[in-house]
Amino acid sequence: MKILALDTSSIVATVAVMEDEKLIAEIILNYKKTHSEKLMPMIEEILNHCEMEPKEIDIFAASLGPGSFTGLRIGMTTVKAMAQALNKPVVGVPTLEGLAYNVPYADGLICPIIDAQRDMVYTALYSWDGDGLQEVMEQQVLSVDELINYLRDKNEKVIFVGDAVEKFRGKLNETLSTQANFSPSMVSMPRAASIAQLARIKALKDESMEASELVPLYMRKSQAEHQYDERMKGREMP
Amino acid sequence: MKILALDTSSIVATVAVMEDEKLIAEIILNYKKTHSEKLMPMIEEILNHCEMEPKEIDIFAASLGPGSFTGLRIGMTTVKAMAQALNKPVVGVPTLEGLAYNVPYADGLICPIIDAQRDMVYTALYSWDGDGLQEVMEQQVLSVDELINYLRDKNEKVIFVGDAVEKFRGKLNETLSTQANFSPSMVSMPRAASIAQLARIKALKDESMEASELVPLYMRKSQAEHQYDERMKGREMP
Repeated sequence: MKILALDTSSIVATVAVMEDEKLIAEIILNYKKTHSEKLMPMIEEILNHCEMEPKEIDIFAASLGPGSFTGLRIGMTTVKAMAQALNKPVVGVPTLEGLAYNVPYADGLICPIIDAQRDMVYTALYSWDGDGLQEVMEQQVLSVDELINYLRDKNEKVIFVGDAVEKFRGKLNETLSTQANFSPSMVSMPRAASIAQLARIKALKDESMEASELVPLYMRKSQAEHQYDERMKGREMP
Repeated sequence: MKILALDTSSIVATVAVMEDEKLIAEIILNYKKTHSEKLMPMIEEILNHCEMEPKEIDIFAASLGPGSFTGLRIGMTTVKAMAQALNKPVVGVPTLEGLAYNVPYADGLICPIIDAQRDMVYTALYSWDGDGLQEVMEQQVLSVDELINYLRDKNEKVIFVGDAVEKFRGKLNETLSTQANFSPSMVSMPRAASIAQLARIKALKDESMEASELVPLYMRKSQAEHQYDERMKGREMP
């Protein structure tokens, strides 16, 4: 089973090709160019490296979100377009689960945090159990203070991954002290290889779907939708 | 500090660029083409992605071995040539240490194993301590049986990484039972990002050197050298 996977949920653009249990190729790019410019050339590049044609791919996988709305739309559209054109199934993988899978066999709770603006984070909690991830707290939007209180009550070692680590590192360190651990940058950012691995597990559990069924996991409304809702509310109750 | 790192110790070719604590780009290629064909184009490609000139790199880093003699020579020569041409320092990172760094915060002993032929492995043992690797057993060549006996005595959970996992997985599973854990392919193969991270740590401890001082860590003689020694021995004692 050949899987092409990508993650464009953050500033990082990453694509990977897996064949059965083996990672064949991966590119991670944490640089300023926009996803709209770099994603398609990266896909072409990785397929060239593997001497593969798009039609040889059995499953197209994407990181579902939460994360950057624009980034997610670009990734999702790309995967859906390729899968639809080639009549292949797709698999969506929650971004937070993908981030947690970057630290297999981690000793402690794995806590991915993605910046949701205004001192909020998209977050979840996992532990590594046997040879896979176990969900400890389901994904949700929390204020950083709420997350800290929750983790303090748990009183276990926590390993943080994700793009909000940089922003909140000082605060997490101060409040959680030695309970807080920060992973090196190479496992703290999205890896398409993790998305591919999890997509494979989901595909084997029959969780693949048609391209048209795949929807992003924004977890909350965009700023524009918020403003629209506010405006509409005003109209109903003048 | 900008670091360009590579690992060509196995069939995997991988290059990465790090700036200070941040991974900027990484390519991992686990495909049949030979390193002599793919390494230089990969370096060009990654620098293009980062919009960097070779002269902007402050440190060139390579995986030192042990591993494929030819692979190591190609990687080493490339790093030395670039560093010498640009008058920049180099840092060498033992391959086994690089592999172990792929699973930060791992719960248990980290045991990288690289195939050394004839049922032997290049191996070492590490544990993750605070925020770095701690050496538990120094790198050496062991028969798989010797390693198994050693690990059995330790009676701790072991996480295997490295290219010999595939070959010896059955035997390790059989003899070590639940003590043995096997990491997913994406962390079991060399990552240039790990080499870059470790090179940064070494550079900050003043362990960088001039290009001419860098030597590979073969850990034992090549087949050709063995045969030569045997022949020479024969001459001395006819």
